[in-house]
Amino acid sequence: MPTERLIEYEGASPEVRAVYDDIRATRKTDYINNFWKALANDPATLKRTWESIKQIMAPGALDALTKELIYVAVSVTNQCPYCIASHTVSARDKGMSPEMFHELMAVVGMANETNRLVAGYQVEIDERFKNT
Amino acid sequence: MPTERLIEYEGASPEVRAVYDDIRATRKTDYINNFWKALANDPATLKRTWESIKQIMAPGALDALTKELIYVAVSVTNQCPYCIASHTVSARDKGMSPEMFHELMAVVGMANETNRLVAGYQVEIDERFKNT
Amino acid sequence: MPTERLIEYEGASPEVRAVYDDIRATRKTDYINNFWKALANDPATLKRTWESIKQIMAPGALDALTKELIYVAVSVTNQCPYCIASHTVSARDKGMSPEMFHELMAVVGMANETNRLVAGYQVEIDERFKNT
Amino acid sequence: MPTERLIEYEGASPEVRAVYDDIRATRKTDYINNFWKALANDPATLKRTWESIKQIMAPGALDALTKELIYVAVSVTNQCPYCIASHTVSARDKGMSPEMFHELMAVVGMANETNRLVAGYQVEIDERFKNT
Amino acid sequence: MPTERLIEYEGASPEVRAVYDDIRATRKTDYINNFWKALANDPATLKRTWESIKQIMAPGALDALTKELIYVAVSVTNQCPYCIASHTVSARDKGMSPEMFHELMAVVGMANETNRLVAGYQVEIDERFKNT
Amino acid sequence: MPTERLIEYEGASPEVRAVYDDIRATRKTDYINNFWKALANDPATLKRTWESIKQIMAPGALDALTKELIYVAVSVTNQCPYCIASHTVSARDKGMSPEMFHELMAVVGMANETNRLVAGYQVEIDERFKNT
Repeated sequence: MPTERLIEYEGASPEVRAVYDDIRATRKTDYINNFWKALANDPATLKRTWESIKQIMAPGALDALTKELIYVAVSVTNQCPYCIASHTVSARDKGMSPEMFHELMAVVGMANETNRLVAGYQVEIDERFKNT
Repeated sequence: MPTERLIEYEGASPEVRAVYDDIRATRKTDYINNFWKALANDPATLKRTWESIKQIMAPGALDALTKELIYVAVSVTNQCPYCIASHTVSARDKGMSPEMFHELMAVVGMANETNRLVAGYQVEIDERFKNT
Repeated sequence: MPTERLIEYEGASPEVRAVYDDIRATRKTDYINNFWKALANDPATLKRTWESIKQIMAPGALDALTKELIYVAVSVTNQCPYCIASHTVSARDKGMSPEMFHELMAVVGMANETNRLVAGYQVEIDERFKNT
Repeated sequence: MPTERLIEYEGASPEVRAVYDDIRATRKTDYINNFWKALANDPATLKRTWESIKQIMAPGALDALTKELIYVAVSVTNQCPYCIASHTVSARDKGMSPEMFHELMAVVGMANETNRLVAGYQVEIDERFKNT
Repeated sequence: MPTERLIEYEGASPEVRAVYDDIRATRKTDYINNFWKALANDPATLKRTWESIKQIMAPGALDALTKELIYVAVSVTNQCPYCIASHTVSARDKGMSPEMFHELMAVVGMANETNRLVAGYQVEIDERFKNT
Repeated sequence: MPTERLIEYEGASPEVRAVYDDIRATRKTDYINNFWKALANDPATLKRTWESIKQIMAPGALDALTKELIYVAVSVTNQCPYCIASHTVSARDKGMSPEMFHELMAVVGMANETNRLVAGYQVEIDERFKNT
């Protein structure tokens, strides 16, 4: 028995269907990916997470592609295979070229390296960088 | 006795001075921050890290500001106070507005949340996201 | 050749068998899961880890289910697929309902999000929360 | 200049004040902690985060104390000093005894240890734990 | 009120004193560092942790210095300031030269970088590296 | 379509072939592992990463085996399956015995545990460990 089965549209409650409908309308696709189908086991979390994502990922001061690049950067740092796979596809769909992907990876790799050099060398924050 | 003292320009070897000179020329500032002064205890790592950073952070398919945003996203995910403080300042220097910062934080927070929802629900990667 | 083969009871040394016997008696099951069979390649670590787990996971000021929920929370945060799978099963065996699982995931997700908002906004610890 | 100043009630917009009022009413205290005052620089994130926290941390299938224990477990795993300090205080306010705290720490420590033993020994998921 | 006060020898129970005595005898120093004084609030965890550390850190197939280097590597990766500070001192006490420290940091930094490049490029495990 | 295909020697550009040739000469093997074949999609990152690795992993104040053990320690802490698999094989090739591997895992596990105990107990850094 699975931890949580994937909830398909056909077997979903009206509450879940309303979220699926909004995902489809917002993303202009019929496809609902497994993340949402798993979360649908908990309609309150499905609804809250979708509404948060919808609000956060909409273009604003940062465009939609930049937001996806940031999402991939976090997912790679956290070693989340599902999130890397799905958000890399999303980023490409929003215009990430191979060159952009390569530069994204280079920055993510280097930031992870220097984060540890700073910690290991116990570097004190410069006065001018202090949040005071 | 400190683990590693900060190496000032005046007391630095020619090898270290050459890196400091390049940092100053590249960044158009006299200021050398503590990270480099700490790394200067190991001139090979100082030189390699600076040259890598210089190459990676230069504008390319991604602009310099986007790269700084990604750097902040990784540093926040890793809980590195020095890196957050210094790269937030760098990002502002390159044009990050308060609104951009707020949206950056919102995306980073949400990505860290959904990375764990995916893991906890043991969500399988959709066929269409598979790297095959 | 595997890094470490799984050590079955039949081929185990008396030292390893003694631990397996105690696992079976304590857990009231014949099943020894792969984690222990892998650790059995190093009998000292097998014995120390089992005895620690046995002591730590026994009901005390916190009941056995609460301890399993905490174990799952850590494993999800660390993105450890084996640990998530095995401790989710253990938690269900100890009484975790689907509703409890959903709430656990919601808390774990939100804590991972706010941990990063705090870091990114460089929030200072309130005087009243200080450990002084 | 700080990254983000703390927004006090007196200088807050009506939108922010409404969230502060709800925090005070829900928590039955006048105290607004620094996390919310920092988030108030971005009223949309303040409102969304508070409403999510309010929903998630309310007693349900898991009681309020258990949820705080889980919050502390995640915060400790992520090495977030602010979150550890504030949620440890919250947990005590909700009834966490010293003994409960000690057991919580023991489980969190052990889970972090065995998460790595599993990874290092490359343990395969047992058939009976598989999410199929 | 502190979360946990530091337990000094003078005010300690016989159970805690016995551990402190063993730490002093094993390490050939009168100094008990804050970690143990904090853990002493929970004598069971103090005793279990000390006995595990004593067993694990004793020279074996790996010498004591190599074990300290590994401890520092993990602590830097996890961004634990206390652990970095204390184990860096321990490593120096056991013979870590500045050159060794520099090389340790270089390896830790690079490993953290390539760990993310591997994840981001979604690299499949080579057949010859598989644990089968 | 894969995110990044693996670049074989036959289809590689002269720039990539030069790196592959150097990997083969340095490691005294014809085998190029998947990590490099994936990175080859971005020749600049391939070259920079290889040259950094070659410099960092060469024997110096620390021998080649110790460096591999540190690499494994970081990879296990970060839960990177590819890196664990490949560097465990590298470490064995450089002389890691089963006993060494067991002790490595024991130290990595314990360090991950005590890192969290320190954080959770909010232990202050001892004066004598301070980097001043």
